[in-house]
Formats: sequence, C-alpha cells, structure tokens
Amino acid sequence: MKRIDGRKPDQLRAVTVKPNFTKHAHGSCLICFGETQVICTAMAEEGVPSFLKGKGSGWVTAEYGMLPGSCPSRVRRDASSGRAQEIQRLIGRSLRSVVDLSALGEQTVKVDCDVIQADGGTRTASITGGFIALALAFKRLRKEKRLAQLPLLDHVAAISVGIHEGVAVLDLNYQEDSSAEVDMNVVMTAKGGLVEVQATAERKPFSKPQMEKMVALAQNGIRELISLQKKYIKGI
Amino acid sequence: MKRIDGRKPDQLRAVTVKPNFTKHAHGSCLICFGETQVICTAMAEEGVPSFLKGKGSGWVTAEYGMLPGSCPSRVRRDASSGRAQEIQRLIGRSLRSVVDLSALGEQTVKVDCDVIQADGGTRTASITGGFIALALAFKRLRKEKRLAQLPLLDHVAAISVGIHEGVAVLDLNYQEDSSAEVDMNVVMTAKGGLVEVQATAERKPFSKPQMEKMVALAQNGIRELISLQKKYIKGI
Amino acid sequence: MKRIDGRKPDQLRAVTVKPNFTKHAHGSCLICFGETQVICTAMAEEGVPSFLKGKGSGWVTAEYGMLPGSCPSRVRRDASSGRAQEIQRLIGRSLRSVVDLSALGEQTVKVDCDVIQADGGTRTASITGGFIALALAFKRLRKEKRLAQLPLLDHVAAISVGIHEGVAVLDLNYQEDSSAEVDMNVVMTAKGGLVEVQATAERKPFSKPQMEKMVALAQNGIRELISLQKKYIKGI
Amino acid sequence: MKRIDGRKPDQLRAVTVKPNFTKHAHGSCLICFGETQVICTAMAEEGVPSFLKGKGSGWVTAEYGMLPGSCPSRVRRDASSGRAQEIQRLIGRSLRSVVDLSALGEQTVKVDCDVIQADGGTRTASITGGFIALALAFKRLRKEKRLAQLPLLDHVAAISVGIHEGVAVLDLNYQEDSSAEVDMNVVMTAKGGLVEVQATAERKPFSKPQMEKMVALAQNGIRELISLQKKYIKGI
Amino acid sequence: MKRIDGRKPDQLRAVTVKPNFTKHAHGSCLICFGETQVICTAMAEEGVPSFLKGKGSGWVTAEYGMLPGSCPSRVRRDASSGRAQEIQRLIGRSLRSVVDLSALGEQTVKVDCDVIQADGGTRTASITGGFIALALAFKRLRKEKRLAQLPLLDHVAAISVGIHEGVAVLDLNYQEDSSAEVDMNVVMTAKGGLVEVQATAERKPFSKPQMEKMVALAQNGIRELISLQKKYIKGI
Amino acid sequence: MKRIDGRKPDQLRAVTVKPNFTKHAHGSCLICFGETQVICTAMAEEGVPSFLKGKGSGWVTAEYGMLPGSCPSRVRRDASSGRAQEIQRLIGRSLRSVVDLSALGEQTVKVDCDVIQADGGTRTASITGGFIALALAFKRLRKEKRLAQLPLLDHVAAISVGIHEGVAVLDLNYQEDSSAEVDMNVVMTAKGGLVEVQATAERKPFSKPQMEKMVALAQNGIRELISLQKKYIKGI
Repeated sequence: MKRIDGRKPDQLRAVTVKPNFTKHAHGSCLICFGETQVICTAMAEEGVPSFLKGKGSGWVTAEYGMLPGSCPSRVRRDASSGRAQEIQRLIGRSLRSVVDLSALGEQTVKVDCDVIQADGGTRTASITGGFIALALAFKRLRKEKRLAQLPLLDHVAAISVGIHEGVAVLDLNYQEDSSAEVDMNVVMTAKGGLVEVQATAERKPFSKPQMEKMVALAQNGIRELISLQKKYIKGI
Repeated sequence: MKRIDGRKPDQLRAVTVKPNFTKHAHGSCLICFGETQVICTAMAEEGVPSFLKGKGSGWVTAEYGMLPGSCPSRVRRDASSGRAQEIQRLIGRSLRSVVDLSALGEQTVKVDCDVIQADGGTRTASITGGFIALALAFKRLRKEKRLAQLPLLDHVAAISVGIHEGVAVLDLNYQEDSSAEVDMNVVMTAKGGLVEVQATAERKPFSKPQMEKMVALAQNGIRELISLQKKYIKGI
Repeated sequence: MKRIDGRKPDQLRAVTVKPNFTKHAHGSCLICFGETQVICTAMAEEGVPSFLKGKGSGWVTAEYGMLPGSCPSRVRRDASSGRAQEIQRLIGRSLRSVVDLSALGEQTVKVDCDVIQADGGTRTASITGGFIALALAFKRLRKEKRLAQLPLLDHVAAISVGIHEGVAVLDLNYQEDSSAEVDMNVVMTAKGGLVEVQATAERKPFSKPQMEKMVALAQNGIRELISLQKKYIKGI
Repeated sequence: MKRIDGRKPDQLRAVTVKPNFTKHAHGSCLICFGETQVICTAMAEEGVPSFLKGKGSGWVTAEYGMLPGSCPSRVRRDASSGRAQEIQRLIGRSLRSVVDLSALGEQTVKVDCDVIQADGGTRTASITGGFIALALAFKRLRKEKRLAQLPLLDHVAAISVGIHEGVAVLDLNYQEDSSAEVDMNVVMTAKGGLVEVQATAERKPFSKPQMEKMVALAQNGIRELISLQKKYIKGI
Repeated sequence: MKRIDGRKPDQLRAVTVKPNFTKHAHGSCLICFGETQVICTAMAEEGVPSFLKGKGSGWVTAEYGMLPGSCPSRVRRDASSGRAQEIQRLIGRSLRSVVDLSALGEQTVKVDCDVIQADGGTRTASITGGFIALALAFKRLRKEKRLAQLPLLDHVAAISVGIHEGVAVLDLNYQEDSSAEVDMNVVMTAKGGLVEVQATAERKPFSKPQMEKMVALAQNGIRELISLQKKYIKGI
Repeated sequence: MKRIDGRKPDQLRAVTVKPNFTKHAHGSCLICFGETQVICTAMAEEGVPSFLKGKGSGWVTAEYGMLPGSCPSRVRRDASSGRAQEIQRLIGRSLRSVVDLSALGEQTVKVDCDVIQADGGTRTASITGGFIALALAFKRLRKEKRLAQLPLLDHVAAISVGIHEGVAVLDLNYQEDSSAEVDMNVVMTAKGGLVEVQATAERKPFSKPQMEKMVALAQNGIRELISLQKKYIKGI
C-alpha cells in the first residue's frame, strides 16, 4: 500500500514549530503538520470563571478558529459552528489534563488555536502546538513572578489515525481523511497515559482489533511529537 | 466492590420504553435508563440541506435539549451550549450510520431528544431511544406511502462505561459519573460493529488494557439494549 | 349544537394531573387538558432581579416552551417567538397575583411550562398546572426551612372560552380553536376575583352580551379546575 | 373624585393628529394623547409572508418601538422586549380586523408606531394613529393605481380604561396607570363591534360588574376617537 | 451652475431648531436641515464605562438610529448596520472633543440622534443638533446641582460638502449626494479647529486642491451653524 | 525631534510582503509594516449581493479581524466591534475604487484581512496588502479562465500620518499612535488621486495647514508603497 504523499503507514508528516511566533501573547508558536498550519497563543488573565471563584484554583481553556482563507471554500467568520465548539472543548480538556490547576492560582490561561491553512489534523496540531504555547506562557509567567512554580504535571500531544483503504495509517492529510473509513484522534501524555480517544466510523463500523491497531499506531506517533515538543520548551 | 445503587459492575439500570409517547411526531418514545428520562420524537420534512440538493439522497439529523427543570440546578433555556452541540452531532452521526440515506429520498428526518429528567447517560439514552423513534417514523412513513421501503441497514444503540474507584462499570448514573476516573461512550450496531468510541480521562489518564476492558463491557450492554429495542419496533 | 368531541358547550375536557412528575424541581406536575400535555416545574433560586434588590421582596416568574415534536409541524427550537413571550408574561402575572411576594423573602421561583403535546389551551393548562407546581414548591421550601410560612394568598386557575359556530363554548381543543370566531382566556382566583381577561375577535367583532356570556362560562369552568387543584395540594 | 389632571372620569385627554407628518411613508401621522406622542408610518411593499404566498391575499403587520429618550429612564435601543412584542402583535391584529386582505392583493403594509414621548396609553394611541396612517397609505396606493379599491371594512380605534382609587376612569396617563388597580385596553370598530378586550388586575382582582363598567366607558371613548379619525381621512 | 433646489454652491439649506422637543430627556431638540429631520436627546446616568471607573472622569457617547419610515424604502428595525455604527462613533468623538470630561464627574451622558426623515446630511445634522441637546442637558444638570460648572470647552458643529458635477457645493441633499463625485464631512469648533475631516471618492479620486476648496466651504458653513446654535443655548 | 524607533518624520517602517502566503485562497500575502503583521486573502465566489443581481456587475468586499493573541490584551473572538465594521467598510471602498466591477462579471471577491500582530497601522497595512492579494487572485482567475481580462483600473495603497509632539510624522507605530494629537489615514492610487482622507483630532483640533502638511507626507509614503506592491504583482 502506498499513501498519496508517499509516506509509510506509520509515518508522520513533516512537523515544524516556530516558538514565540507573536510577541504580545505570553506564549505562542506556529505549528505545521505538513501543509496544516496553526497559530497557537496562550494569554493569562487575572481571575477565574464563576464556578471556581474562591477555591484557590486556576483555569485553562481553549478557543479554536479558522481564518476565512484557510480552506478551499471560504469559511464564514460569524458561523457559530458545532464543530468548532467540539474541538475547542477537546483542546481545553486535553491541556487541563497535564496542568496542576491549584499551582496556577486564581488566574485563567486562554489558549487560542487559529488555523491559517487546513490540510487535515487541525485539532491534533492545535493540541500539540497549544501545549507548547501554554508551556512557554508558564515559563514567562514564572519569570514575571506571576507563578511560584511551573504548574505542569506532564507533557501532552495528539495525533490522528484512521483506516484508509483497509489499512491503519497515521496522521491523515485532508485527502486521506475525506476518504477514510474510520477516523480516530488520540491524546496521550509523555508518561504514556491515554487522555482522550475518539473514534468515528465514517462509512462502515470498525472492529475491536482495528481499534487496537489504531491506538498502537497513535501511541508511537505521539511519542515522536513529544520528543519534538521537548526541544522547544526545554529549560522551562 | 459495591455500586451505589447495588448493581453489579456489568449491570444496566432498569431500562423502559414507552413507544408512541406523543401523537404529532411520525415516531416517538419516552425512554428511561433508571431515573434518566428522555422524550425522543422523529419528524419527517420534505427537502434536504443545501449540500445534498439534487443528489437524490435524504438526511437524518438530531437535536438535543434539556428541559429547565431536568437538573438539580435549573438549566437556562437560551443557553447555547457547546455540550449540547457536541451531543446532538454524536446522536446524528450514530443514527445516520444505520440509515440508507439514498433509500430515504429527498426528505429530512429530524430526531429531537429532550431530557425530562437527567441522572447520567442522557446521550446514550438519546441514541438508543432516538433509534426507536426513527424506526417508528420510518414505519409510519412507509404506511403513508412516503417511503417505498424501510431505509434501515442495521440497529444501533449506545451505552456509557467508566472506571469508578478503579473498577470498570457499565451504565453510570449521575453520582457515579461525577466521581469516575474515566468516562467512555460506545455506540454499536446489532451486527457488532463499532460506530463511535469516545473515552475521556476525567482525573488521571487510563491505560490501553483499561480501555479494552471498558469496550468489552459496553459491547455486552449494547447487545442487551438492542434486544429491548427489537420488542418495540418489530414488524416494521 | 354538537361539539366535535361530543362535549356539551359548558363541559371541560378530561383534566388529569400527575403531581411531582420530576424529581429535581422543588415542585412539578404533568397536567393534561384532553390531549394537551404540559410539564410544569417550579425551582427556587436565591436572589431577585435587580429592580427588587434590597426591598425584602421575592419574585415569581415563568417561562413557556414547546418541544419540537409537540405540534403537527415541528417547532423550531431556536425560534424566538412573540407568542411565547406573550404567554410567559401572562403566566407570570397570573401566578404572582396569588403570591405574597414579601413573605417569599429575597428568592426567585421560576416556573417552567413545557408543552409536550399541544391540542389547544396550552396557556390555560400552563397557568393551572403552574400553580400546582408552585404550591408544591412552596411546600417543599417550607419543609426545608427556606420559607417560614406559605406565601400563598389564594388559588388561581385559567380556562379558554370562545364563540364557535355562534355558540359560546368552554375549553376549546385545537380544532375548535382554529375555527372559532372569538377566543377568550380568563384567569380567576378561588375567591372569584378576575385576574386577567383577554378576548380576541378572530374573524368578526363580538358584542358585549357575548362577552358576558363567555365570562360566565369561564367562571364555572375555573371553579371546577380549582376543586381539582385542591386535591393535589392539600395539606400544604 | 378628582383626577390628577382635573379631568372627569369619562373624559379623554386632548387628542391631536398631524396627518402626513413625514414624506417618505405612504401614509403617516403624529398622534398625541395628552403628552403621549407617537409617530405612525405605513409603507407598502410587494409580496407577502411565506404562509400567504400564492393565495391572492395581502398582509398588514405592525412594529412598535420607543425612542431612547421617550421615557424618564433611557430605553435601551437593542433591548428585545417581551412587552414590545406583545404590543406590536396587538396593533397588527387590531388593524387587520378592519382590512379586507384579499382586496389588498399580494402586498404587505407595515405600520410602524414609534413613541417619541411616553405618558401612558402608548399602545392605544398607536392603534388609533396607526389606523389613520394605514388609511392614508391606502388612499395614496389607490391614487398610484396600486389598489383598485379601498380595502377597508370599517374604522378601528382603541382606548385604555382602569380602576383608579376605586373609580372607573378613561384614558389613564402614566401617573394614574402606575397606581391603578386594574388596567384594561379595548379595541373597537366604528360599527361598535369589540375586537380586543384585555384586562389585567395589577393589585387585586376585579369583579364582573367592574369589568362591564369599564367596557362601557371605553365604548364611549372610542366613539369619540373614531369621530376624530374621520376628520383626517375623509375623502379616502 | 445651478443646484437642484436653486441654492448657490456655498449656501446651506434652511436650518431650524426646536429646543426641548421632548420632556423626559435632560436636553433635547428637533433639528432640520431642509427636509432632513433628526430628534436629538441627551440623558445623563450615574456611572461610567468600566475603562473609566475610579478615574474621576465622565463620559459622553452617542447612538444613531433611523425610524423605519424615515427613508423611501423602509429601514429594518433590527438591522445591525455598519453604517450606523460608524456614524454614532463619529458623533460621539465629535461631541467629546468639546467636553471637559473631568468636569463632568463620574456620570455618562448618552446622546441619541434618531432620524425622523432623511434627505441627506443626517450625520452632520446629528452632530449639530446633538451638541444643542448636550448643552441643554448640561444646563439642566447644573440647575439640578448635578454639575458644579458647565463642562463645555467650545462649541462644535458639522456640515457636508462635496464635488457635484465638478463644482464644490455645501450641504448636499439626498439627490445631490447620490450623484456626487466626492463626499466630505467636516466637524469644526467655534474657535476654528478641525475635529474630523472625512473625504470619500465615490466615483473617481479627487485632487489636493479640490480637497482644500471643500474644506474652505465647510468652514464657512460651520461658522453659520454655530451662530445659530448659540441662539438656542445662550445663557447656559 | 527624534522618533521612538529612530526613524525620520517622513520615513516608513520596514515593509515586507510574502505573496501567496497560503495555498487555498485565490490570492494571498502576509504583509508587515514593522511589527504589524496582517494575513490578506482574496477568494472569489459565483454570484453577487442581491442589490447587484442581474446587472452584469461584480462585487469586491472586505472583512477585517484580529486574532485573539494579536494585542497586548486578548481580543475577544465574538466581540462585534464597531471599529472592525468601520475598518472593513473602508478597506472595501478603497479596493473597489480601483476595480472595474463590470469587467469582473457576476462574481464576488472577498478580501479577508486578519491581524496576526498589531503595532499600529493595521488598517493601512490591510488596504496595501489586500490590494496585493486581490491582484494575485485576479491573476489566478484569469489563468483559470474565470476572467477574460484583468479588471484593475489602477493600484491603491494606504498609510497613516499624524501629529506627534507637534511634528507631522509618517506611518505611526502603536506607541506613537497612542500619544498622537492627530491621526490621519490616507488612501491614494498610483496615479495620485485621493480616494479616502480621514483625519481625527485625538486631543486638540488641528489647523488647515497642519492637514495639508500631513497629506503631503502621506502622498510620498504611498508612492513608496505602490513601488513595492508592483514588485509582487508584476506580470499580472
């Protein structure tokens, strides 16, 4: 079996990171998974949502957007999209899974993931890059004495896997994704714990062995991504 | 290990169905998983969304809501909720996975799942009951000659599983769900194919063997639910 | 003259009440006027709207909704409807007319009336059932020591009347309502005081004697409804 | 008994009308009931709402607004108000009761009632002035050959009545309205038919004889208003 | 060259002002530039926007609206219009340019400009009349001891100029405005300082000498308007 | 006088352009004026707004947004901003001033300008970069035979000028802009015609000679920008 872009089934696309891509956010990066490009920024604000007030805990939340020109058909700017809501909830949960919210104190960090160019895997790029932006923001907040210690418990990254023409493949691009039978997103920590597993049959249902195969593929991919993350956030 | 309500780890709550609960919808039921109660109605309309126009295919979509008095704290009626968006997208995908959309012709069936009383598992009750409402609607549409044949490819049902105090348990009620370490929803067909698997670590990440254990538990629960569904929609 | 469903002009439809229909609300019931079915729930919250703050008075307000499957044509969930606004203002005013707001203290009770199935008279069923839910909520709040005394001044109920084929009739169902010449809703207390009278000519104007005839019919119907209410809220 | 402004119980405030107050609308007037001032404009557009398409019938509808500076406390411009919705539905129904919609053909007349200064009775001034604007618009449309005949079946006007300090009084100003025990609005045609009667107990319920007294008072007031209307729309 | 309505190129339309046009606002006027009619009201409220809290400064802001019947085609009431946003920001900036916000104390004055009839130049009429309403409000607030001194630094007024059939003309009406090659609005103080200059080429770009010609014309017009304003607000 | 960043009063910041920055849009660029960075994309769609239907003319419109992380304080994603509305209307008018809409045929080109990093002058960077994206889109549409000829009449660019500490300066960065006495934006074509001139006194009014000085400065800056644009769109 040969993939559209010549990759092996278990091969990631070229993944690149430009840390500190913008200057105003506390932490930021531009992350690319092949032709998918996402700007991730993390900004801290004093205060927490009302359900946390007075509990001495912080909060991390995420928002996800697509620039109008990021897709072959223009994306309407004011479209309130169920898909975007779902993705930003996933990003938020994933990032919170590795943050010690009580060590954060009563502040909120908002991580914004804005897709500049979409070619499949925007949500997994957002989680992987969002973690880098968040870690860089924590670094800066510690430097500015707004944090006594680094409130990170672990690293987290995410990747997509799928069944394409009957074969389990890693990190699908848009063309593969459109014709895949099954689409799965896996979020995992550096220590190997699973944080989120979401599998969807697009055409026909899948079997348990197929699912296990996909999870194994994803675990390898995520280990690779976490190695990459570490280069950009070392010394935090 | 003993569950709060005395059930065994692999035991469903009492599940009851009142088919044809309301008279105006083409198909409807009131489904209860223990104290969780959901009214499901399915109504057909001529026409399809614009992306399907002229393709000779039909569409099935779902909406999910909670009555203000369904929860211990009143649910605001106008709250546009990311959670509701996510759930209704899941219900819609799950139902479409067993419908032959081309056999439906250019009509849209909207399945509404309105939670009367919430006690955990409202999304899985919605999928399981939504399928019954949909099947009953198809039956009525065939009787009214708006369908030449039954556009159903399979049955579909859903159940939640989780890790609670270290043990994998089936069909969590609200109290269990609130303190579970992992929360998983599984959607499966009568033929045993997996349609959706969504697992979320609420406190700490989970391992691959834990995930496999949960999926096995869910498969048994869903088989039981599908047997129940068949009682109410036989002869369709 | 013979009514569509065989009733006499001054005869109510079968009215049934299931008190405590749901468990989370402080008070609730399912009320049916023939095939019209409405779930009424009453929930108390600390605090009052800003115009009442610091005045030592409480507040009672109502919201009205229709489930999507409650009508022959599906009701859009997000439709902001002038009709619904008007009905919920009427329900709120009617309920407040029999509540001693100062005895309620600085808390707000929200009464939600959600139509499960519509067949005419949903607003009058909502007022009649909403009063039961409210009274049951007051009972529970007193038991929970959130109320020192019962803040009820009187009972209240409502009924529709109309001119149908030239004859004044009580409690119109949907089919009668659609072809009635005049539609009137009357809200009255147990002591016989009129709280609201709303009469609308649908086809041709009506005369003062016709109006008086309708009011008399309504007064009798409401007396019957209040007797029924008393069964479910006795001992409060 | 002496009224705040020296009027007798059955006396209207000074009512003045400036017809053709603005030049762009097909018909318009400024109507004043004492210090209450409302600009009414009527504009015709081709086409009808979707529920009337292809039936050869026209439509008349109304919108009601308050200028921000019309009240002692500034009215927010973007406030979506249940009260405004209710009032504009009342104005629309009242005007339609005297229009032969089939003689109007497939066009829609929108009547806008904008309160410049509020001092009680804005809805009844809107109906009374809205009818003049509508009639003047019909006159102009006939002149422009957009109407073959005048689609008016009757005249319509409205007035408020109430119980103030135990006495039934006509045409309440804001100060009276704020302290009235009962507030009633009556809409009636020139031929004496009742179109709408809406009575609300503000403090304590009212009796049937009180209601009859108020209706009688309103009937006299409306007859006076219709005489006034006729001066401005004669020759139509 | 002859203008449509016979005016000379440097001639204003008839400008009239009715001060204190409504009674509830602290200051108000009806201002007419020819057939353009705008109601301006100014109302003070305690408090300032959050960005000014605790700074001891006040705020002046403006809102602009058009009544539905103010234009040949009915203006939709709920249309959120970019044009209106732009105009009300311009009015607000213009008025603030002559107010000593610190002398105002922590209160906000809202100036509402509602167009009753539009015939070109509604934004310049709004600024010119808005200033009168604001000054009258200041006068009343001082009388009511809510202001220790008059917080006005200067007078301000505005006028439109344009290039029409190649000639620079002052105060364009709607017909001229629609066919003008260039449209310019100038806001200036009594002392002659420019506050805003906005020039837009509608058809073809304009030259620097043309711009200077237009500014000179506007300066003369504004001097005339300020003389007029002074008649209505003298003694403040 | 010395500027904050060492520039001379009449000196632009470093301006860089990356044409074809994203692959999906018909034309695109990343444009930087110093630290201000804007992604401009232009996408064509069949059809025109309703007011142009059937007239054989095309349309060009613009939208402007700021990424949440583009400013020192996070920009809310859902904030409907009067400022954004005003800017996108300005961009749209400026671009249309150099497009032959009838040569475009019945298609609409939407130009999106999304600010990645803001440091003053985002609207002028958007116009200057938006023109490049538009020209590149026209080039591609001609290649794809969706355009018979290039519908461009001229080039257009924009720059800000201001009075800062009494001196007229070109291309203000954020720090200068915040403390400038006067802020002016000028839009001009390659042929030297003025398209838009918007001058606002931020602190104290300005004089006519000051305005003339600023316009002269802007004209020189724009000539420089247009030379730069030509490098990236030559051969179109």
